[in-house]
Amino acid sequence: MNQQYPSSLLEKAVGEFAKLPGIGRKTAMRLVLHLLRQDIQSVESFGQSVITLKREVKYCKVCHNISDTETCKICANPQRDASTVCVVENIRDVMAVENTQQYKGLYHVLGGVISPMDGVGPSDLQIASLVERVRQGGVKEVILALSSTMEGDTTNFFISRKLAPYDVKLTMIARGISIGDELEYTDEVTLGRSIVNRTLFTGMM
Amino acid sequence: MNQQYPSSLLEKAVGEFAKLPGIGRKTAMRLVLHLLRQDIQSVESFGQSVITLKREVKYCKVCHNISDTETCKICANPQRDASTVCVVENIRDVMAVENTQQYKGLYHVLGGVISPMDGVGPSDLQIASLVERVRQGGVKEVILALSSTMEGDTTNFFISRKLAPYDVKLTMIARGISIGDELEYTDEVTLGRSIVNRTLFTGMM
Repeated sequence: MNQQYPSSLLEKAVGEFAKLPGIGRKTAMRLVLHLLRQDIQSVESFGQSVITLKREVKYCKVCHNISDTETCKICANPQRDASTVCVVENIRDVMAVENTQQYKGLYHVLGGVISPMDGVGPSDLQIASLVERVRQGGVKEVILALSSTMEGDTTNFFISRKLAPYDVKLTMIARGISIGDELEYTDEVTLGRSIVNRTLFTGMM
Repeated sequence: MNQQYPSSLLEKAVGEFAKLPGIGRKTAMRLVLHLLRQDIQSVESFGQSVITLKREVKYCKVCHNISDTETCKICANPQRDASTVCVVENIRDVMAVENTQQYKGLYHVLGGVISPMDGVGPSDLQIASLVERVRQGGVKEVILALSSTMEGDTTNFFISRKLAPYDVKLTMIARGISIGDELEYTDEVTLGRSIVNRTLFTGMM
């Protein structure tokens, strides 16, 4: 459908929204017309929020998480256990682990996983800086918390080889049956692994 | 889920996106992180596009369609038939009718339909200016092209009463079986109407 826009400004704004992932031209039009119905302050607040974010956002020099400051709130917090570092793919994973309220150590954000198909090699990721963190000492345990995919496994293996020379405990997050899942619907690889990696029954689930 | 954002700038941008209709916090986060991966020029182009649209957009003084100029491209076009005015709810409907390439007259954008439930009365819509257009003369036919809903029907009826004193032909777009639809799946009201309002068979579909 060759859309005839009544205004070039409208066409430009719709075009910008339609570049976003998962947003087609019809949705983009709906969103832009919604914004157009708001007052000018709201629209400026919307437009400026992403520009300001892009201009002023910092990445923590220690863990590479997104931050308002040179060192992020987690790395700067003396209450956190600096001897444990959890390696994650991106900042959404940091937020996911934080939301569990089960982890009191620090993070290391790789910025992705090794994926030759997408042209992502080890040098595109924050692996060298992870090795450097471990080399400087003070880190007793590195927890690998990457996705359970071929790319995640490859990255886990690569990191484990890079950290082999150092005196650091390397662990990975547990894989098994999701809480609430029924056995008969669990895939056999996960079920098989969960039997091999069974844990002592303590009465706690 | 009480999200802990690692950056207040990120939280602000995600909050702004989450105000958009149909966009939740998770989608907002995905969109903002996507923008953050683009270069600064792209992000400024995105943010400025809506601000510029809101600041500089005009509404045609004749038909109230969105426009870059005082009078919109359609109203200013001497090739269009100024004696026919198609009344629509919003600018998306103008675009929808334009895309059919079946209409060569002008438009009148009401800005909504009468809906007491939503607090929209006749004075909130561009009905007075429609009556004024007709009163000034030159308009021979007004086509009502509103949604086939109770609100649309109410608005049609209200406009028809307002235009009754004037010598103008009042028509409405045909309602019937959609092209490609099968009879057995058509609702009975539409099917009943399409029998009552049957047209002469000319060999053209």
